[in-house]
This record gives sequence, C-alpha cells and structure tokens, in this order.
Amino acid sequence: MTMITDAITVPGFLANGIHVGIKADGRRDLSLIFSTMPAKTAGMFTTNSFKAAPVLVDRERIKSGLAQAILTNSGNANAATGEEGYRDALNMSRAASDSLCIQDALVLVASTGIIGRRLPLKKISLGMPRLTAGLCPEGIDAAEEAIMTTDKFPKVSVRKAMIGNTEVTLCGLAKGAGMISPTMATMLAFFITDADIETTALQNLFRQVVNKTFNAITVDGCMSTNDTAIIMANGVARNRTIKLRTRDSSIFKEMLFSAMHELSHAIVRDGEGATRVIEINIEGALSTADAKKAAYAIANSNLVKTAFFGCDPNWGRIISAVGSIGINIAVDSMDVIFEDIAVFAGGSGVTGSEQRLVEIMAQPHINLRVNLAAGNKKFRLLTSDLGLDYVKLNAHYHT
Amino acid sequence: MTMITDAITVPGFLANGIHVGIKADGRRDLSLIFSTMPAKTAGMFTTNSFKAAPVLVDRERIKSGLAQAILTNSGNANAATGEEGYRDALNMSRAASDSLCIQDALVLVASTGIIGRRLPLKKISLGMPRLTAGLCPEGIDAAEEAIMTTDKFPKVSVRKAMIGNTEVTLCGLAKGAGMISPTMATMLAFFITDADIETTALQNLFRQVVNKTFNAITVDGCMSTNDTAIIMANGVARNRTIKLRTRDSSIFKEMLFSAMHELSHAIVRDGEGATRVIEINIEGALSTADAKKAAYAIANSNLVKTAFFGCDPNWGRIISAVGSIGINIAVDSMDVIFEDIAVFAGGSGVTGSEQRLVEIMAQPHINLRVNLAAGNKKFRLLTSDLGLDYVKLNAHYHT
Repeated sequence: MTMITDAITVPGFLANGIHVGIKADGRRDLSLIFSTMPAKTAGMFTTNSFKAAPVLVDRERIKSGLAQAILTNSGNANAATGEEGYRDALNMSRAASDSLCIQDALVLVASTGIIGRRLPLKKISLGMPRLTAGLCPEGIDAAEEAIMTTDKFPKVSVRKAMIGNTEVTLCGLAKGAGMISPTMATMLAFFITDADIETTALQNLFRQVVNKTFNAITVDGCMSTNDTAIIMANGVARNRTIKLRTRDSSIFKEMLFSAMHELSHAIVRDGEGATRVIEINIEGALSTADAKKAAYAIANSNLVKTAFFGCDPNWGRIISAVGSIGINIAVDSMDVIFEDIAVFAGGSGVTGSEQRLVEIMAQPHINLRVNLAAGNKKFRLLTSDLGLDYVKLNAHYHT
Repeated sequence: MTMITDAITVPGFLANGIHVGIKADGRRDLSLIFSTMPAKTAGMFTTNSFKAAPVLVDRERIKSGLAQAILTNSGNANAATGEEGYRDALNMSRAASDSLCIQDALVLVASTGIIGRRLPLKKISLGMPRLTAGLCPEGIDAAEEAIMTTDKFPKVSVRKAMIGNTEVTLCGLAKGAGMISPTMATMLAFFITDADIETTALQNLFRQVVNKTFNAITVDGCMSTNDTAIIMANGVARNRTIKLRTRDSSIFKEMLFSAMHELSHAIVRDGEGATRVIEINIEGALSTADAKKAAYAIANSNLVKTAFFGCDPNWGRIISAVGSIGINIAVDSMDVIFEDIAVFAGGSGVTGSEQRLVEIMAQPHINLRVNLAAGNKKFRLLTSDLGLDYVKLNAHYHT
C-alpha cells in the first residue's frame, strides 16, 4: 500500500463539482461522482430519528447493492422538510438519471447545510447539464469542494494496493466541521474504488472500518440528521475478486482503514473552533461499552474541552467526567496519563512534571490515556477542544 | 406562605462566614451554620464515583438523622485527595466540634473549589475561634458569601408558613456557577428550619423536592464530585409535629418547593457565561425516562445552547438533539413551541411568526415546549445558554 499525493483519479470513475447558487457566496455547491458502469455499493447512515430526505431515499436504494452515481448538494440539508422534501430528493435524483441516461434507482443523493428549508430544485435542474458535461477523471477535487460547508480545508484521501498482481486504487472524500458525533457515519463521506470485491465482503469490511474510524470521533457530541457514508466498487481493475476472510480482504481492509483514519482525523482537526486533536485511549475497562462511555464522557465534557483550549492539563475535570456515568472504576487505582506523564494515580494527583506538561499541552495532537483498572477492554476516540470560535460560529449560523 | 425580604433569621440557628486565606482574593471562604440544639437532618449527595472527602464523611454521619453544625470552606474542593484528604475532612470537622463544644459526629462538612489540592487545614484551625465567636442569628448572608466560588450573586431564599397556629421559617443557601448537572443535589445547598417534623417525613419530602428542582437543572452537563444538599430542622418553633401524608406535610412541602425552585432557578441564571434561562418542558413522552432523556439531550447540546446565545430559534438543532437518543417519537406529529409560537409541526417547519420570535428570543427567561406525541408523560428542566464567557472562564480557571 502506498500513499499518493499527485493528480487523483480512480479508473472508471468521473467526477465534477460546480456552483449553481444554493450557497450564497459563489462557492461550489453541487457535486457528482459517476462510475462508468454500475458498481457494488455499501452504505451506512445516521441513526437520528429525524433522518433527512436523501437518507430515506438512499437507505431503500442501497439494498440492491448496486449504484452508479452520487449526487450531492451543500448549503441545504433537505432535513425536516416532510413529504415535500422527500419528493424533492426523488426529483433531485431524477435530474441526475435523466442527464446521465442511467436507471434512476442507481442514483444516490446526499444533502448538507441548513435544516428545515425546501431544496432549490430549479437551481439543481438548471445546473445539471453543466455538471454532467464537466465530468472527468480528475474532477474529484472539485466534487470534494462542492460538498464542503463550514470546513476550512478539503478532505480527500487516496490509497493504492496490490491484489495479487493487480494494482487497485481507493479514494475517499469527506466533509465535517460541526454537528459531528456520528453513530453510523460522519456527515458525508464517499469512497470509490476500482477493486473487484464481493458485495458481502464490501458491506462487511466497510461496516467494520467505519465503526473504528468515523464512528469513533466527536467534535461537539451532536448527531446529524444527514450522516452518510457510501462506498462504490466498480471492478474496473479486473483484479481477482476479493472474498471475505482471505489475504486479499485483509489488504483491502487495511487500505480502507488507512484512508478512513486519515479522513476522520482531518474532520476532528477541522472541527468548528478546534485548535487541537485529542486522542482519548481508554484502557482497563470491564467491558467495551464501559470504555466507550468513558471516552465519550471525557470527549463531550465542556469543562474538559475548554481546559484543553486553555492548555490546562486539568485531570480533575477528566476524573469528574469519568466518575459521572456510573461505570466500573477502581477509583484508587485509576491512572490519567498525558502522553508519557502520569497526572493522577493511586487516588490523588501526581506533581513534579509541570514543565513537561506545558510542552505537551501546546502540541496540536495530544494523547490522553485513562486506565480504569477494572478489566482489560479498551476504546479509542478522537475529539477536539472547545474554543471561542465554536461559540461565535454557532451563535451566528442562523436558520 | 409568604416571601420575606428583610433581615434573615431562623429561630434557633446561628451562622457566620469569614475569610481565613483559602481564597487568594480576600473574599470570605469559611462558613458555619449552627443549630442551638441537635436538629433532625436529611441530605442528598453526588453520585459521582469520585466523591470528595467531605461527601464521604457526611454520607456516613447523616445516617443518624441528627446534626448540629455544617462547616464549609470554599476555594478548595478536597476532592481526589485520597486518604490524606479524608483525614483532612475529619480534622476539619474536629476543629469545629472542639470550638463549638459539641459531639464531633454532629458536625457535617462541605468543600467547594479546585479539585486535587490538599486542604489548608492550618488556616481553617487558626480561623475557627474567630468564626465561632462571630456566630449570630443574622449571620446567614455572611455564611452564604463564604460558600460562593465563581457565583456572581448570592442565593438565599426564605419562606414562612403556618403549621396549625404556629409560624415556621425555612431558609435555603446555595452556590452554583459551573460543573452543574446534579444527579443528587447541586454543588452546595443548605436548608435550615425551626419546624418540628418527623425524621422520615423530612427525608421523604426533601428527596421528592430535590428531584423536582436541583435534580432538574443543568448548566454544562458536568456532574460535580462535591454535590451536597442538606436540611436541618431543629423544632424550635414547637409547632405540632409534621407527619407524612397530612395537610401539614403538604404545607411544608410547598414551602420547601418554593424555596428550592427559587434557588435552582438562580443557579441556572448565574451559570458560567449564561445570558438567559431556558425552561424546557417535554410533553407527550411514552415514559418519564424518555421525557428526561429528551430534556437533557436538548439542554446539553452545544449547538442548541449556542443558538440561544445567538438569539436564534434554531428548531433544526432541537429536533436533531431529540432525534439522536433513540427514544419513542412520532416524528410526523412532534411539535416544537417557543412560548406561544409553534416553529415545527407535522414533520416540517412553520413560518410566519418571525417578528414575534425575535421578541421571544430576547427574553431573559424562555419557555420551550416539545411535544413528542408518543404518550402522556412529561419532564421539566432548567438550563442556560452557552456563551463566550463560559469558554473564557473555563479555559483560564487552572488547576
């Protein structure tokens, strides 16, 4: 497996992103990813009770295991828009299938932006001929730009690997920023690969890797109505078909994990108002559920998050957060460790490393380890700090 | 029942608060409440796994149902201080019992402030003679001042009521500010009354009312290690003894509720960085547990809290928060109502009242109603918004 930094293309995939006027500021807002042939497809979606209209459409269509295009708009989430919103999502799909001359059932749709406003369908229909005419192998960066909202930088990740003697390529595009605490997948993340892989293997590996990456990050503890992660595999590489529980599937899984980890880390780093990434490693839990609860309790504590923003190794807030959720903890043996420095052990604070802690707290990526001393289960979670810009951004991003 | 605003005294109780040097800035930091005779006493404490040393001491002592004094320091929480901290709490109690010439087992102790530092016991011992010498019936305001930390204003509430032909008085003192999401009681709240009441009635009514007031507020979703609520009833009024399930107990409960509601509201209003109080009323839930989950999901959503700070009636964030917790909701019939204006109904947004919403969002107290349309259970929760000052305060309040 190698990392690629030059011109991004995936054999058999075309992409494009343009501005059609949904965003007020002239930035790209309509994105299309197209496979030249129907591709095996898997997806994971938000568990929010209020699922956005495009999520409702995709959940049904993805059951076939096949798709050929993903059409996404930014600037409007098409969420909480009732039956009209659902019809808008179907019409958005129809505009793409008409323009691409493919079956409507092979189009997946996604939306991100403001909740509760009707989709400007006319702008989408009018822009569609220009969007499809501009499709090209190098259009992935434009497609990525067109799915961004308050993201400060684009998030694209590419990997190549050998399956037997055949090289396969994987590319992922994601957006994040706010309302990030995925339970199925993050806001929007699309993966395309030319690998040939069995549908069950694709679904199985995709779910496993999403759970360890996108489902293990939180910026603000707020789950979105639009979370969507989709992977399309068109088989254009003509490698020997990847099957579950083979060396090939391990290679494919490792490639997928590497790309998803990069993107999920980028989402946390670009969290609204974030100044640093905190990697929370819970160890010594009685169960994985306990480990997960402890990690989220720390990550979603505003007192912990503001302490990181203030470069303060405030372990008191960390133990308070872990203590508040009723899990099994050996309170007199629990450890709290910042990088290589223990700050809490044996039931009370550890002093003497203040200078080293100042250095650690200034890092852009901080490793926090909490050993609950109650068992041997663990969980890793990425989160960001809570800075003034989060409040400013979200107090003024009006409905 | 009448509300009292002039000089606060409760027959048979003396109080005082002085500065002994635990707080660096010269404000009062040692507080004593003393009953001239042993009083029937009930208490509720934090459920945090990391209970502060004074909480561990009080939980044992309060089993006797009797106490005569509450000694509190601010500026240091005596939490996460291990066995030494526990001995410090016992020695703090001993300093009070020696100075007051009462049984040590009748002293309750409380601490609030920074977590993880040893208590400056010497300052407390040296200040004790001055503290007890200054005890007086009018010392309640000084005692309140001495339990405050980042509170911007004192929180004292007084009520009088008639039990038969006898007037009884109740007075409550509380502190709040940050780390406020009580599960048993808020940071510190002490109630004193001259009423004569059976111990079981006192315990029972106290628990009921705490659950509806202090246990139904959240500023930042962060549970403290020191939450403590105590009531002492010394019987000096010589009213006919209040028994459970009588008209007298209803009067006493109403008086207690009125005082506790006032104090819990004041704690939310004085939440760190708060600019307004939001009263969240969940209705139509399938169970009380669902109603409570929905209320806390809204109250602890940073996106909802920052929207209130920005005067934005952002119902999209409210329905996202309610939708994220997996409770029973009729998504197509749920209502979201700000004061008298419905903003979400029938599965989509309701427009046309924008001007009235601007007025509502500018109010210091906003009533938010969410009807889940799934049953007939309800829950009321008070919370505050999330402003820039919360981040500033907590990024710079160092350990």
